[in-house]
Amino acid sequence: MNPTDARSRAAFSPEKMKKENLFDSPRMFVDVHGLLPGQAQKVHVHDDADKVVHCLSGEGIVTIGDAEHPIRPGEVTVFPAGLAHGVRNDGAEKLVLLVMMTRPT
Amino acid sequence: MNPTDARSRAAFSPEKMKKENLFDSPRMFVDVHGLLPGQAQKVHVHDDADKVVHCLSGEGIVTIGDAEHPIRPGEVTVFPAGLAHGVRNDGAEKLVLLVMMTRPT
Repeated sequence: MNPTDARSRAAFSPEKMKKENLFDSPRMFVDVHGLLPGQAQKVHVHDDADKVVHCLSGEGIVTIGDAEHPIRPGEVTVFPAGLAHGVRNDGAEKLVLLVMMTRPT
Repeated sequence: MNPTDARSRAAFSPEKMKKENLFDSPRMFVDVHGLLPGQAQKVHVHDDADKVVHCLSGEGIVTIGDAEHPIRPGEVTVFPAGLAHGVRNDGAEKLVLLVMMTRPT
């Protein structure tokens, strides 16, 4: 995939968090997720895939296992396989995330 | 991995491009690469791994197959398995890249 300004690919929906796919293969995918204030991806688990979440703009909260952490632009979080995780936009601005996840093998 | 400011983890060496590892698993790794002006990662191929390169600061040139493209902060490039690729810092500033690559299965 040629160089792409990831943040400009963000999309939003008043109904729920919006996912835009940039790249997909049998090994991994790359998405841009757009969350309006108050929106969230509920806590869930991938038993056999690692997920990397890079905050591109806005602010939010990630859940990793039993802990919560604030995220800000430029910060990278990794959710390893088997660990419960989630993210929510508790701020006043749009939250844009670059998300990469491996595929189960 | 808890939220981490990726750019602040960049390191540099006058000898060659410097790699700092942030996360490693049987499925993938996350690195920060620091390239001083004039430094490069030569064109090479991974037959069975996809690589994502996110430019965090500085400017450079990526090679994808037979094509070259400039990269700027915020731009994401994907090098799919099997495609020759490389990157070089042809600018005047330090180049910092967030690099995620899948592991061969």
